Amino acid sequence: MTRPTKIHPERGDARTRLLEAARDVIRQKGFAATSVDDLCQSAGVTKGAFFHHFKTKEALGVAVADHWAETTSALFAEAPYHEPDDPLDRVLAYLEFRRSIISGETFEYTCLVGTMTQEVHESAPAIRDACAKSIFGHAASLQADIEAAKAQRGIDADWTAKSLARHTQAVLQGGFILAKAAGNPDLARESVDHLICYVRQLFGLETVSSAPAEREN
Amino acid sequence: MTRPTKIHPERGDARTRLLEAARDVIRQKGFAATSVDDLCQSAGVTKGAFFHHFKTKEALGVAVADHWAETTSALFAEAPYHEPDDPLDRVLAYLEFRRSIISGETFEYTCLVGTMTQEVHESAPAIRDACAKSIFGHAASLQADIEAAKAQRGIDADWTAKSLARHTQAVLQGGFILAKAAGNPDLARESVDHLICYVRQLFGLETVSSAPAEREN
Repeated sequence: MTRPTKIHPERGDARTRLLEAARDVIRQKGFAATSVDDLCQSAGVTKGAFFHHFKTKEALGVAVADHWAETTSALFAEAPYHEPDDPLDRVLAYLEFRRSIISGETFEYTCLVGTMTQEVHESAPAIRDACAKSIFGHAASLQADIEAAKAQRGIDADWTAKSLARHTQAVLQGGFILAKAAGNPDLARESVDHLICYVRQLFGLETVSSAPAEREN
Repeated sequence: MTRPTKIHPERGDARTRLLEAARDVIRQKGFAATSVDDLCQSAGVTKGAFFHHFKTKEALGVAVADHWAETTSALFAEAPYHEPDDPLDRVLAYLEFRRSIISGETFEYTCLVGTMTQEVHESAPAIRDACAKSIFGHAASLQADIEAAKAQRGIDADWTAKSLARHTQAVLQGGFILAKAAGNPDLARESVDHLICYVRQLFGLETVSSAPAEREN
């Protein structure tokens, strides 16, 4: 794929184009397999432009994790799941929203920072830390609603809002891996369905369909 | 498969040493960042020996996923979680066993085939398919116990044993990503704790600690 050299102001500046190319190419090929040449070609910029904006490929890795955190934060801030008055309804609407955006090509619905963390957790601590900031920062954004839902419904449990918020992210990340393995987004949706069922149970909205039978042994 | 002359019998043959090196180095650096030289150095074999056993690095990727499936299947087959007579006890013992083996260095407890899937899902379908076989094959090994537990306890639910078995693997895979991001295995254990709580709830062993309060709106 050859893209014309710049001259397309509607595609944004070179730095933004490189970040958007990195976001998509890394989700398709992984960080290590994505070369600077790949990114320049995909973004339609020169190698000189790349190194003008990013000293190294690792610096690009940190910048694209930060860019992911900023753009996904904006997406989630504007999403309709904040609308319900009831905090538990907001938590469940968040999970339904996450389920609803699992569609399209694999790279389109999977997570850049989960993908990069998996690869560079030991070899590039600066990228890993930027990914962690994105993952745990997003988890933290759910915590207040879970805490409010616990308080409002008088749930006195031994799980914390912080741990449940993190667990929601673990389920999403793991669902993406199964979806990648199978080449099928249904596998990610299936795990989100189990997560929704779990959260409903934690708040007393679901019970087992049949009373447990007497144990035979 | 031809076995080479054994120079280091105590370390196994060259092919096995290369597979064990790949298992550990890929979990540390990822597949793309792991070079054939890295593997030869780590395994103490020559490049000639590498290409005697594996035509390409991709062939090594498929072989190490298969090796992972075989060795982990043996580990799980011998694990004590099969001992309880009660099928639900076996399911819960499996989850406790998975929790108990999350310790040590990150590469030691995380999953080779989850890591490789994340990277090569688009670029190396043969490796991805070998990883999928390992992940979904292991999930299938849990299905009979979950099915038996459902039948024995009279659970008439809209979730299937197959989907719950897959969900357990999604939670583990996602927990590993959070643990890698934080450099802390507690994050993976935390998600397994939520999973255990979920399974106990599905089978009526847990209820919410307090009755849900009246909703205010």
